[in-house]
Amino acid sequence: MASTFGTLFRVTTFGESHGKAIGCVVDGCPARIPLSVADIQPQLDRRRPGASHLTTPRKESDTVTILSGVDRGLTLGTPIGLTIPNADTRPHDYAEMEAVPRPSHADFTYAEKYGLRARSGGGRASARETAARVAAGAVAEKMLTACNPVEIVAWVESLGALVAPRPDLLSITRADVDATLVRCPDPSTAEQMIAAIQAAQDAGDSVGGVIACVCRGLPAGWGEPVFDKLDALLAHAMLSIPAVKGFEVGSGFSGTRMRGSVHNDAFYRRPDGRLGTVTNRSGGIQGGVSNGEPLLLRVAFKPTPTIGKAQETVNYEGQPIRLEAKGRHDPCVLPRAVPVVEAMALIGVMELWKERCACVR
Amino acid sequence: MASTFGTLFRVTTFGESHGKAIGCVVDGCPARIPLSVADIQPQLDRRRPGASHLTTPRKESDTVTILSGVDRGLTLGTPIGLTIPNADTRPHDYAEMEAVPRPSHADFTYAEKYGLRARSGGGRASARETAARVAAGAVAEKMLTACNPVEIVAWVESLGALVAPRPDLLSITRADVDATLVRCPDPSTAEQMIAAIQAAQDAGDSVGGVIACVCRGLPAGWGEPVFDKLDALLAHAMLSIPAVKGFEVGSGFSGTRMRGSVHNDAFYRRPDGRLGTVTNRSGGIQGGVSNGEPLLLRVAFKPTPTIGKAQETVNYEGQPIRLEAKGRHDPCVLPRAVPVVEAMALIGVMELWKERCACVR
Amino acid sequence: MASTFGTLFRVTTFGESHGKAIGCVVDGCPARIPLSVADIQPQLDRRRPGASHLTTPRKESDTVTILSGVDRGLTLGTPIGLTIPNADTRPHDYAEMEAVPRPSHADFTYAEKYGLRARSGGGRASARETAARVAAGAVAEKMLTACNPVEIVAWVESLGALVAPRPDLLSITRADVDATLVRCPDPSTAEQMIAAIQAAQDAGDSVGGVIACVCRGLPAGWGEPVFDKLDALLAHAMLSIPAVKGFEVGSGFSGTRMRGSVHNDAFYRRPDGRLGTVTNRSGGIQGGVSNGEPLLLRVAFKPTPTIGKAQETVNYEGQPIRLEAKGRHDPCVLPRAVPVVEAMALIGVMELWKERCACVR
Amino acid sequence: MASTFGTLFRVTTFGESHGKAIGCVVDGCPARIPLSVADIQPQLDRRRPGASHLTTPRKESDTVTILSGVDRGLTLGTPIGLTIPNADTRPHDYAEMEAVPRPSHADFTYAEKYGLRARSGGGRASARETAARVAAGAVAEKMLTACNPVEIVAWVESLGALVAPRPDLLSITRADVDATLVRCPDPSTAEQMIAAIQAAQDAGDSVGGVIACVCRGLPAGWGEPVFDKLDALLAHAMLSIPAVKGFEVGSGFSGTRMRGSVHNDAFYRRPDGRLGTVTNRSGGIQGGVSNGEPLLLRVAFKPTPTIGKAQETVNYEGQPIRLEAKGRHDPCVLPRAVPVVEAMALIGVMELWKERCACVR
Repeated sequence: MASTFGTLFRVTTFGESHGKAIGCVVDGCPARIPLSVADIQPQLDRRRPGASHLTTPRKESDTVTILSGVDRGLTLGTPIGLTIPNADTRPHDYAEMEAVPRPSHADFTYAEKYGLRARSGGGRASARETAARVAAGAVAEKMLTACNPVEIVAWVESLGALVAPRPDLLSITRADVDATLVRCPDPSTAEQMIAAIQAAQDAGDSVGGVIACVCRGLPAGWGEPVFDKLDALLAHAMLSIPAVKGFEVGSGFSGTRMRGSVHNDAFYRRPDGRLGTVTNRSGGIQGGVSNGEPLLLRVAFKPTPTIGKAQETVNYEGQPIRLEAKGRHDPCVLPRAVPVVEAMALIGVMELWKERCACVR
Repeated sequence: MASTFGTLFRVTTFGESHGKAIGCVVDGCPARIPLSVADIQPQLDRRRPGASHLTTPRKESDTVTILSGVDRGLTLGTPIGLTIPNADTRPHDYAEMEAVPRPSHADFTYAEKYGLRARSGGGRASARETAARVAAGAVAEKMLTACNPVEIVAWVESLGALVAPRPDLLSITRADVDATLVRCPDPSTAEQMIAAIQAAQDAGDSVGGVIACVCRGLPAGWGEPVFDKLDALLAHAMLSIPAVKGFEVGSGFSGTRMRGSVHNDAFYRRPDGRLGTVTNRSGGIQGGVSNGEPLLLRVAFKPTPTIGKAQETVNYEGQPIRLEAKGRHDPCVLPRAVPVVEAMALIGVMELWKERCACVR
Repeated sequence: MASTFGTLFRVTTFGESHGKAIGCVVDGCPARIPLSVADIQPQLDRRRPGASHLTTPRKESDTVTILSGVDRGLTLGTPIGLTIPNADTRPHDYAEMEAVPRPSHADFTYAEKYGLRARSGGGRASARETAARVAAGAVAEKMLTACNPVEIVAWVESLGALVAPRPDLLSITRADVDATLVRCPDPSTAEQMIAAIQAAQDAGDSVGGVIACVCRGLPAGWGEPVFDKLDALLAHAMLSIPAVKGFEVGSGFSGTRMRGSVHNDAFYRRPDGRLGTVTNRSGGIQGGVSNGEPLLLRVAFKPTPTIGKAQETVNYEGQPIRLEAKGRHDPCVLPRAVPVVEAMALIGVMELWKERCACVR
Repeated sequence: MASTFGTLFRVTTFGESHGKAIGCVVDGCPARIPLSVADIQPQLDRRRPGASHLTTPRKESDTVTILSGVDRGLTLGTPIGLTIPNADTRPHDYAEMEAVPRPSHADFTYAEKYGLRARSGGGRASARETAARVAAGAVAEKMLTACNPVEIVAWVESLGALVAPRPDLLSITRADVDATLVRCPDPSTAEQMIAAIQAAQDAGDSVGGVIACVCRGLPAGWGEPVFDKLDALLAHAMLSIPAVKGFEVGSGFSGTRMRGSVHNDAFYRRPDGRLGTVTNRSGGIQGGVSNGEPLLLRVAFKPTPTIGKAQETVNYEGQPIRLEAKGRHDPCVLPRAVPVVEAMALIGVMELWKERCACVR
């Protein structure tokens, strides 16, 4: 169960890391929206492995095929089926994992749940599954922006102890983010981050960090009290990404240290006559409903658990073993996770779009 | 929409702060489990207003009535309908809010969404709605513990800048937590927290903080990849609580600053022959699935937005106004939110219980 | 599980026949629609027991209370909680059923499912639960008709072998239906039906029949291919009513005996320029989507299983027994089921209304 | 929306009649169940076009590919992605339909809903979509029968006015059904049916009929009161099949003509000590829950709306036109719909299997 996210805008993914293909079905798209592979491939290319020396050497072109839901360049209102082949699979690289559960990986818990031991690089728990989400997110973006001027941009805000200054939320673009290899828009911090990843890689180790994400242009009034608050849906979406351990909206944990009189976002009259807030500690959401200000999210990624460096652990039988993981893996998932965070934000928001938007049906 | 949480174990709440009653329907309970008001009232009493000078002076006994689903002391397998009357309603206290949206409250966003201006203390967005969740959580706890030795305990970990030392996760009890008025199990930090709340109250201001929550005794294997990971469901559940702005599991944001070799939880063989982890930075969840170790969550609560202290803001028409909120409100919601966090953890876990547990049907 | 119908417009019922109360929560109503008890009570009164000598002598005023979701006569957009007290409960009348499962009743299957033997007149399986549906249906009707000129009218079409001629689908009203005690709009057939019910009652026996239902004014384009076709949702809704064993839309089973050239509904140009169909064997639905013609449904109700007449059967231990059921029951449920069919049609249609209607949000 | 059926056992289909491929994702399968293409292909072959002169001449091998969810011949507990290519597409055959909506087809209602006119043989509304359901049903059958001795067999019971005698529900097999070209197990009726189809085909016309379906071996206790009664789920499943206009369980509409004393199924003690019913007018379901007796369903299929015979109708502009449909279509869908009915019965039952079955997880 649970390979589906959403109720009105419904994304169902399938596929293991080393099977024939991964893919998804995106249901709930309106009809008559232009859509082609060219709308989907760019985000997949941003997530694709092997794009730099900082990532896993696995070679995948991640070329998406649209199987259904589009005819003569327009959506039909029917489900959009997408597949991405697995080209460079090496299940034998992972034979070792049939005997030893990798620490902090899903090997052990999946074995407990399904009675099967991982092989093939983690199968369904592999980050490879997120390619299907990125494809679905690109579809979501095309639908969402057909009538709403929404822009969603994510970037690497911190890596280990290295924290970049916050960019201007109103102007930052994906191009700004992609200007550095590590997808941190601040060039000098980015440089240090690249060095830190390189150092971890050289040590057979890995690093974690925080991805920030802004959503601009979302109208006020999106979000469903009580249980499907906009931030609750987004938290659900973000925590479903592999390696995520934390989520914040607006001031998040740091806001807990302020008094109400300091934290509150006073209202003012905007030039267009609508109400805006002077500050934005709410992160664009009040009472679980968007208020028209930019949404700000922060998502914590733990360091990649699969590392080459030796670890003292035990095998499934409980016998001590020194594990030096083989297989191909990223010393740091954050640069490639940037489009995944964007995709999950888009998929989460689309759920509410269907509830609210009357302009495209 | 969205007054229901869960699919297999389904909690539907209803009721506004100043209507006739609030309540809930709990569907998906197994039959033949003992259940009475005495199982539900204690948690409601922990959340009840007016229990100390630190909370709102609103007087509510919060006496729950079981309308259905129980016969001769045993559940029937049918939905359990619960109501809690609203006794001490004073809608006129809130007349002012029909003209001015309170900063960082849901007044403005609800008005945008529903075309109605708040009166009656926030209506559905009021924290009063959480009483229904606490009642549902108590039902969930009774069902869950009928065959699983699960214990869920939450406490106030920090308040403003005051941070309590982490208690022993394996032994902390609700009695330990209730030993102090502020529900922080460390007496000396608790004393400072009480003073801080008092100081904020005297200043017509409010404070926020962090509630931690442990879940012990959960078997390994609970959680549904990909989108209904145990931590994703719990993040959804926690962010649906009013005033919550952040969520962490295990090492959370602090784990992003470690290297993988430090962060990873190595396995060892436990005396009972099963695998355990030497450390628990995963917080009991790996790959979205429980691993048998204690679950550790942290939930960030912003400072209460309704404050008596004057705020410079504008009314719905955009005219500048100095707002000094009347009505009754808590200078700090955290002590009363402790059973709410426990309730949402219980409700979230029950969803997976239904998927996994074969012992009670 | 499964006390909720619908996803966008969500009705959750609770309550057993002889508990404190039954009720429902209706979620997904738009805000700012006028709603009061006066909108709900009339349909409840049509379903109420004891209204004529043809029904169970149980005395229930079925007075509904609105607990939430309405303020100053307008909906808030929040869930509407409704309760109806159980006043005239006599659980001791049903003591016998703890030993003997009534033939063709839910006693045996509930005992198999829940491990509990019925008492209290069937508990959750009792037709009393349908009062909550009728209340929810009245809410649905108020919401639906706020912007769509939809009219839903049901009537008793046949009772045993007595079949009434089909009334004019475009003009039949609830007043026409209520003109006879048995809710058959054809007076002469109605007279024979009343005699047939009386005869069955005198014999300690019961009769079944068919209720027809028309839905006028539904716009074209409602219904969600593939699995939530309008007729599939309505079939689900109707088969969920106690005692229902069959469902037809349009020509139904009789259409299977025609050739395509006879069965097909040719199009014509209506005076307003839109396309209509010359005949309506489709019953207003093509490909699972409404076509703008009147919807016609037929619902088969089996004869009431609880009868006073002696039946040779066995008790739970398998010992032969002659059962003469006590308790209060209807010799024919059809007249009282008319508003239940209307309610389920309304609830089913509202699911699609939420997907399609942009005029009220 | 609504390309997904089920909550616990979830089938999502995608694909249009003349796109690249159709397919489905089956989520909620337990792990470690043997599954291969050989389990799926036989039912697809039964539904495949071109198998006899009675069906459409479209040539499709309908060869299924398993993209995910299976490794080394065993299910992984992860979603099973299946695709079936569309090989013999001829969109130009259907160009005419862009101007004229076929009577009683989905052309008009889809155009109203999506603002797009059909081409490509009906696209998503085409019966070709049911191939994906048949594949999913075969997966469901493999899972269901892994621990329950359930057998589901459907057959053509009537065609036009030709009605076959009811076969023995306890012994009829798919081999019996397949013994005749028309899938009616009674050879002499089958012969007449074949002649009737041939006659309709020669006249450029089409015929409808009724498919009956038995489900043997289902344990007692499956079905979820109130709204997900077993028969309500099955009615939903069956009415979602193209061309279906009616559904019955057990005595269905004919039962409405009996008195309760005649209709009731008295209990008796079976040799194994359990209770059975002497008769089975309930069709294996009481109160929406299975009682252990064979389930009997009847499903009404209207005559195929696409016919070669001339029809007087209007085009989208309302101008009179004489339509003689080209393209390839079946004069009678019933023989090929037999495995579709079985598939939807299997998919419907699996939803409840997940709720009840503790033997495979």
